[in-house]
Amino acid sequence: MSKIYVTGIGPGLYEHMTEAAKASLADADIIIGYKTYIDIIADLIGDKEVLSSGMRREIDRCEKALELAQQGKNICLVSSGDAGVFGMAGIMLEVVESKHSDIEVEIIPGISAANAAAATLGAPLMHDYVVISLSDLLTDWEVIEKRLHCAGEGDFVISLYNPKSKGRPHNIEMAQEILLKYKAPETPVGIVRNAKRHDESYVITTLKKMNEAEIDMFSMVIIGNSKTYVTRDQLKMITPRGYQL
Amino acid sequence: MSKIYVTGIGPGLYEHMTEAAKASLADADIIIGYKTYIDIIADLIGDKEVLSSGMRREIDRCEKALELAQQGKNICLVSSGDAGVFGMAGIMLEVVESKHSDIEVEIIPGISAANAAAATLGAPLMHDYVVISLSDLLTDWEVIEKRLHCAGEGDFVISLYNPKSKGRPHNIEMAQEILLKYKAPETPVGIVRNAKRHDESYVITTLKKMNEAEIDMFSMVIIGNSKTYVTRDQLKMITPRGYQL
Repeated sequence: MSKIYVTGIGPGLYEHMTEAAKASLADADIIIGYKTYIDIIADLIGDKEVLSSGMRREIDRCEKALELAQQGKNICLVSSGDAGVFGMAGIMLEVVESKHSDIEVEIIPGISAANAAAATLGAPLMHDYVVISLSDLLTDWEVIEKRLHCAGEGDFVISLYNPKSKGRPHNIEMAQEILLKYKAPETPVGIVRNAKRHDESYVITTLKKMNEAEIDMFSMVIIGNSKTYVTRDQLKMITPRGYQL
Repeated sequence: MSKIYVTGIGPGLYEHMTEAAKASLADADIIIGYKTYIDIIADLIGDKEVLSSGMRREIDRCEKALELAQQGKNICLVSSGDAGVFGMAGIMLEVVESKHSDIEVEIIPGISAANAAAATLGAPLMHDYVVISLSDLLTDWEVIEKRLHCAGEGDFVISLYNPKSKGRPHNIEMAQEILLKYKAPETPVGIVRNAKRHDESYVITTLKKMNEAEIDMFSMVIIGNSKTYVTRDQLKMITPRGYQL
């Protein structure tokens, strides 16, 4: 019986990929994914059949995966980071469910972009946190705004996915404005570009100054809670868990 | 120059560990950790020196790690799941910072318990979510309560760490009561015990009935948002991202 793996390949560098992810690539007859992610794992694919496509073709990719699985092929649908966090896991399961298919789907977790960026920054996610995508392509901006208010009100650490793209350059500024109603201007903010990929870079700044930094669709933005601080060398962010040293 | 790795070994099964995590174990002269996690990676340790200790000895472990690193040893401090999510990354960095040490600390990310549990449940974390620990050992219960209210108000998917232990059997009931003010009683809830470990098990239930299920300190509880649904076979939870099928 054929199956579909939806595989989180992690942030990019192979060393942060799991054995299970590699095994799912090895077990697949056909590998399907967004071109950028296929390129990342090119060395692991060998001479397997590959179907890559551009952004915003997520439903097409899943329908193709299901069609080929029904023809008896094992499919590996790749997703960057963790497949279950703004990745391909949900839409693949939705397609299988909507077509009343009984094809087996296995989700292989990966290191998420938030966890990868946090490791680079030090330890910003050590206490309760929220993960919010600032992309309003599939979500009404009003919903995102409401969630930013709630995240601020609850003094959560905040990880922002899709903080900025050419199509929506101002969402990050609106997010900053909302969060400044709840968080101090000097709240530490870490911005990691290409976390755990080649050419990784990061800055640690403040909520007030965060929009002076370069932020794009390859960036993860992590905003501290009221207890988050920056180390003396200015190189790491730490959110204390509450231990008494 | 010696260094300290703080390594997220992932949920437990080796197949969900990364190469970087294994490399940090291999590079260490001494491996330090909570006994349960040391046992999990026993096969990977070989004949290296190991210092294991019981629960709630986190500061001791970090101070020992720093002391030994200052003596020229490479240390691997192991943490289950992701070291940066309620793990050892923060406290290790705090100890180094408080002692004004310049020992290098590298955080190796791992598959977090929430991501592991989500993969087992299907795709519950596909949209904005919060991660909250219900342990009030280090955090005032009032803060946790406030965050539960905010998480409910924002219609976030909610991952609950440390949902229940013998010392605090009622926190999960109080959390349920708060969330029922904001979320429908039939909101899907997934409870995964030993996610991505041997003897993994899970149930999918509802917010109203969740406390009829077995929940303990090895459990991760994931509560859906207003759009989360359960598949026809009752085996998976999906939080839609918003694609129009």
